[in-house]
Amino acid sequence: MLSLSVLTIGDEICIGQIVNTNASWIADQCTRIGCKISIHSTIGDDIQIIVNELERLLSQSDAVIITGGLGPTHDDVTKDALSKYFNDSLVLHQPTLDYLTSIYAKRGQTVSERNATQAMLPSKATILSNSRGTASGMWFEENGKIVISLPGVPTEMKGLMEEHILSHLSKRADETEGVQLYKTLLTTGITEANLADLIGDPKEFLNGSSLAFLPSYQGVRLRIGVQENNKQNASAELERIEYYIRKRANKFIFGENDQTLASVVAQLLIKKNQTVSVAESCTGGMLGAALTDISGSSAYFEGGVQVYSYSAKHNILNVRPETLTQYGAVSKETVEEMAINVRKKFGTTYGISISGIAGPGGGLPEKPVGTVWIGIADEYKVSAKKFVFGNERSINRERSVGSALEMLYRALLDE
Amino acid sequence: MLSLSVLTIGDEICIGQIVNTNASWIADQCTRIGCKISIHSTIGDDIQIIVNELERLLSQSDAVIITGGLGPTHDDVTKDALSKYFNDSLVLHQPTLDYLTSIYAKRGQTVSERNATQAMLPSKATILSNSRGTASGMWFEENGKIVISLPGVPTEMKGLMEEHILSHLSKRADETEGVQLYKTLLTTGITEANLADLIGDPKEFLNGSSLAFLPSYQGVRLRIGVQENNKQNASAELERIEYYIRKRANKFIFGENDQTLASVVAQLLIKKNQTVSVAESCTGGMLGAALTDISGSSAYFEGGVQVYSYSAKHNILNVRPETLTQYGAVSKETVEEMAINVRKKFGTTYGISISGIAGPGGGLPEKPVGTVWIGIADEYKVSAKKFVFGNERSINRERSVGSALEMLYRALLDE
Repeated sequence: MLSLSVLTIGDEICIGQIVNTNASWIADQCTRIGCKISIHSTIGDDIQIIVNELERLLSQSDAVIITGGLGPTHDDVTKDALSKYFNDSLVLHQPTLDYLTSIYAKRGQTVSERNATQAMLPSKATILSNSRGTASGMWFEENGKIVISLPGVPTEMKGLMEEHILSHLSKRADETEGVQLYKTLLTTGITEANLADLIGDPKEFLNGSSLAFLPSYQGVRLRIGVQENNKQNASAELERIEYYIRKRANKFIFGENDQTLASVVAQLLIKKNQTVSVAESCTGGMLGAALTDISGSSAYFEGGVQVYSYSAKHNILNVRPETLTQYGAVSKETVEEMAINVRKKFGTTYGISISGIAGPGGGLPEKPVGTVWIGIADEYKVSAKKFVFGNERSINRERSVGSALEMLYRALLDE
Repeated sequence: MLSLSVLTIGDEICIGQIVNTNASWIADQCTRIGCKISIHSTIGDDIQIIVNELERLLSQSDAVIITGGLGPTHDDVTKDALSKYFNDSLVLHQPTLDYLTSIYAKRGQTVSERNATQAMLPSKATILSNSRGTASGMWFEENGKIVISLPGVPTEMKGLMEEHILSHLSKRADETEGVQLYKTLLTTGITEANLADLIGDPKEFLNGSSLAFLPSYQGVRLRIGVQENNKQNASAELERIEYYIRKRANKFIFGENDQTLASVVAQLLIKKNQTVSVAESCTGGMLGAALTDISGSSAYFEGGVQVYSYSAKHNILNVRPETLTQYGAVSKETVEEMAINVRKKFGTTYGISISGIAGPGGGLPEKPVGTVWIGIADEYKVSAKKFVFGNERSINRERSVGSALEMLYRALLDE
């Protein structure tokens, strides 16, 4: 098994100004190709600290992927730290300088002295060209250990990983003995405890593999982890466990790995040649945003209305004043009218509506903060469901979107 | 200066299945009270690895905050690792058991044997009650070092930090010599390079303090960092540098620290007693979502329309077919009609509209992917701006929202 650590360099990450999405992305990609991730470590821009940390991580893993600290300003010291660690020096890398020259020429500029320093690179490194930015990547190999250094800008880091690194690492992982693989099954509409009951005692079928339950606002994810001597055996073992779980809980499983409820709903809509429109109150546009997050969404998403205020519900969506007065804006009757009317207005197969009390204000004894009604209508019928989530505004809004997508998903499956 | 490391425990973080938002939140909060963050480290659920890592981190910092691994299942081993490290044992903590009993009683259940293990806690720890969940927090102190252990669920971790930990750590930080403080000024509508030119050579005014430029989709953030012998001096030095920067770049600074463009716009709208409605195409609801992310948004947000399709723009928002045919859906003329019409429809002070090609498909030679038009209308006038962002769908959508908020912000300032 190829063991790997992820080292993030940058004061802004260290002091918590930026969330470290690079580390999880790299770990996820490398886990998929069978690497074992030992440690993520984040430190500031300091040459000696970087050298020490590199030493430590390499004593515990076969490879280290570093991100950050490759910019042209004085606080970027990763290259110097790498030179120090490998007892190397920076030399001019002509292809990088030519590339920098062409980039600045396009903007009608010449390469400044400061920017030209980005073409000064450690002589021992294999240089990886970065088509999305000005900092080249580096691949070092010494005494059977691999050190990869990448820029901290996520799109540049991802580009370099996809173009130059993952396929090579995958090959290396294949050459080592032992492999660790994961597969995640995504469920919706069932609680963690009920899912556990349905699947039964993990000891009965795991045989040393692992199964983790990971709850999220869009449902519980089941992560199967196996460790075998080669990829073929690992895949077979994953399949065996997946089959066991699906036999018991298949109706709650809507997808795998990095799919989302929105992406699965999108595929179903496209396959069935159906369309959807939305009427959103407390979510203010989040459901529409989720449905259009996927490229090609114009095939199934017509549009919607954000009817946040009382009067907008009436004026824009023709919800009857009697309904609003008698039952309130957060009610079965209101969301059903909203769903019916938005569907008609946009001429879509489905209309979905959300109205709720996201909080922290606006709660009532009979309708506490977290109360959300969601409606769905098609040509023949309309229905609505009531949810009572918690006290946190942002979570209530996210769970509303998750539940609305689940209702649409069930409708698309004709359940 | 109180130096602090953040240790995250959990296989799901280590393999990259979950982004580590806890570490950045903790680091940010502790930085604000004057602590110096040395290292973030993430490792899997393994007793010996946790013990070793704790030893290492404590050799380099005064305090370690641990999150994760406090659940009731077999893979949660943080308490065992802490017991091992402190040569301690788990004993029954009656107040925690009483609390667990009351929680389960509310659900009509008794505490199962498995769940009762959450009341078994290390004898040497001060126990911190967790009102949001079942895993208590722990505070250890030995040989002048502090170890704090918290659950991994973000809302529970944050609750414990705010109720029990930050004020104590702040006091400790005050007692140590030296303090490090940061302040961030948020700018919009200016590039990093132009901002740097405007402010001039940092050496002229920094006197050993630091200034970092952090670009984001909502503008460049300027982070000032100072290190002084006490908080008073640090605050004075922050103020001095802030004054220097504001004298040169004040018109681009819209806020500070954890404010957002949306929250500043919201405050201005409320202060001026004005309202807004939105007409969104390529953002599908994201602008409305951003404007309603803030509690109390019903004071200024009336609603909007997500007119994603060609026909929705015409049928729902009455954009004239001639406009759409002659100029296209992504044009000055279309977004201006959208802004005027949505404002009238919802009867708001402002109407804002977005129409663009988010990509990856739909680009044209004269309107490449990333082309976005944004319009804004009030009672007297309408205007629109064209943006050409990049190739990435999600970034184009985020930058569209950021730019729309900036246009509204400028309008609210009457600029």
